[in-house]
Amino acid sequence: MDTTQTILFIAELIGTVAFAISGVLVAAEKRVDIFGALVLGTITAVGGGAIRDLLLGITPPTLFQKPVYTIVAVATAAIVFFIEYGMGDKIERFSVGYMKVINGFDAVGLAVFVVVGVNTAIASGQGDNGFLSIFVGTITGIGGGMMRDILAGQIPVVLRKRVYAVAAILGATVYYFMTRGGCPDWLSIGTGAACVMLLRFLATHYCWNLPRIPRTPREDTRE
Amino acid sequence: MDTTQTILFIAELIGTVAFAISGVLVAAEKRVDIFGALVLGTITAVGGGAIRDLLLGITPPTLFQKPVYTIVAVATAAIVFFIEYGMGDKIERFSVGYMKVINGFDAVGLAVFVVVGVNTAIASGQGDNGFLSIFVGTITGIGGGMMRDILAGQIPVVLRKRVYAVAAILGATVYYFMTRGGCPDWLSIGTGAACVMLLRFLATHYCWNLPRIPRTPREDTRE
Amino acid sequence: MDTTQTILFIAELIGTVAFAISGVLVAAEKRVDIFGALVLGTITAVGGGAIRDLLLGITPPTLFQKPVYTIVAVATAAIVFFIEYGMGDKIERFSVGYMKVINGFDAVGLAVFVVVGVNTAIASGQGDNGFLSIFVGTITGIGGGMMRDILAGQIPVVLRKRVYAVAAILGATVYYFMTRGGCPDWLSIGTGAACVMLLRFLATHYCWNLPRIPRTPREDTRE
Repeated sequence: MDTTQTILFIAELIGTVAFAISGVLVAAEKRVDIFGALVLGTITAVGGGAIRDLLLGITPPTLFQKPVYTIVAVATAAIVFFIEYGMGDKIERFSVGYMKVINGFDAVGLAVFVVVGVNTAIASGQGDNGFLSIFVGTITGIGGGMMRDILAGQIPVVLRKRVYAVAAILGATVYYFMTRGGCPDWLSIGTGAACVMLLRFLATHYCWNLPRIPRTPREDTRE
Repeated sequence: MDTTQTILFIAELIGTVAFAISGVLVAAEKRVDIFGALVLGTITAVGGGAIRDLLLGITPPTLFQKPVYTIVAVATAAIVFFIEYGMGDKIERFSVGYMKVINGFDAVGLAVFVVVGVNTAIASGQGDNGFLSIFVGTITGIGGGMMRDILAGQIPVVLRKRVYAVAAILGATVYYFMTRGGCPDWLSIGTGAACVMLLRFLATHYCWNLPRIPRTPREDTRE
Repeated sequence: MDTTQTILFIAELIGTVAFAISGVLVAAEKRVDIFGALVLGTITAVGGGAIRDLLLGITPPTLFQKPVYTIVAVATAAIVFFIEYGMGDKIERFSVGYMKVINGFDAVGLAVFVVVGVNTAIASGQGDNGFLSIFVGTITGIGGGMMRDILAGQIPVVLRKRVYAVAAILGATVYYFMTRGGCPDWLSIGTGAACVMLLRFLATHYCWNLPRIPRTPREDTRE
């Protein structure tokens, strides 16, 4: 395993931890039990990769071949569950700092998952299909959070808030064209990941949101 | 490309436009942002075909091989989003006529997606399995709308209203038996599609609904 | 078909009936129409197996090759729908006894689906991967109910209540290690299934629930 691989692996572990935590936080809001918390934490961490693999025809999905990510996700979710279980409402007191760290981890996770997703598409022989590769990279990054939200009974956050998905698409596109254009790995990965993290940081910092239709709900119209 | 193929292609484009519009209309009700609107519009248009392809083991799904439908769906969703964004509440004024046109387009889309779905099952070597072929045709027609509704946090309209799904099943069945029975393409396609559109038109016109259980909700019973 | 196979087949039919009924009961609460009730009933019964097959790369899923389960599920759902439709609120009067029977059937179904799921993973050549085999067994048992709940717009019951999923995981684990360890079929199947049913029975009887985080909801935190 060379340096780039080692860095990617560490970044994937950081992302897995961050995504698992975000799953447990949603679980806590929805009052599911510990099993629900473990499922939501784990699916947030590994669900995007599972969708990617099913779309690419990689069965069984990679998560079953390399259980390290699942183990890390389950362990993280269990630890966070018991911390929150033990602390109850007291956790609010220091939650601002806590959230900042999680947000930073989450940005690393999104960045690395997107890059790994594009890479998986290319490695499976679909590198000529830019649309597929970029889509698959994006869904690897945001798919787990979407599955978490669907299971938790809420409209996926990624469809409603900030520029989370746009950051993923931008990073996937930049990485795809750089790596296909012959840039060295460390440069393509670094630039792609940096795009994701920078856009995500700016959006959070300046509270950027995408436009919405300004009007009142009406009855649904397709029967 | 012969005449039948050309007509099918045009009908698929009409259906793609109609389904994308229905996705954006749901998006507007749910107050998602423009990214959410594009996702809901696109998934309504191409989601049914994606489910079909995963069930048949066609990976990556066709939508990634023939991006024309996705491009049309994204473009339609973007245009409708900006019209609704610009018009806001004013759009209600002419919405009755607008809805009639969308409904007509939607019927064309449902009809053609069902026929194409059955055809894909047969072409993938599953023609002897009528249950699979008819199911796959139906899910090609209604699966996108179901994905749209799940993402939008509502019970799929198709489970609640009118005879939308029944029209799809009827059309898929008629088309399957005609094409397997040796009828010429134009006749099988025409009859199958006409069944879908006719039943859907009658149901909308006469407000047909399927029966429901008349009672008050109770606690859920399976733990 | 030897005795073990016959018993498994009968148990699968009992489970199919029970799961289909649980789907229609959820359908009745959500006021979907008869098509919705048939879909929810059927997907509860065969959805877990469909997820299992997609994860293992078995396409089209087994349910399309052996339609007997789907036919039984649709027929059960239709009968229950019309009983509930005809009886309306009167059904409440005898619902306690009715629910006990359904619960018993449901336990049989969960037990047999878990065993069959593990078996399918092993038969598809994944027997060396214990994590995958046990996961696939569990999802065969609980996946249908999760799909039912997602379609019905509620957080999956399995994430919120009792030890339903824990029973499935325990049974899958016991069965996996016994069958891989060379125990005869009847013993492995019997012990695995008994674990599921016993744990499920005890949990229902003593109202066991898993712990939850005791606190008030807050805004979701990942954007």
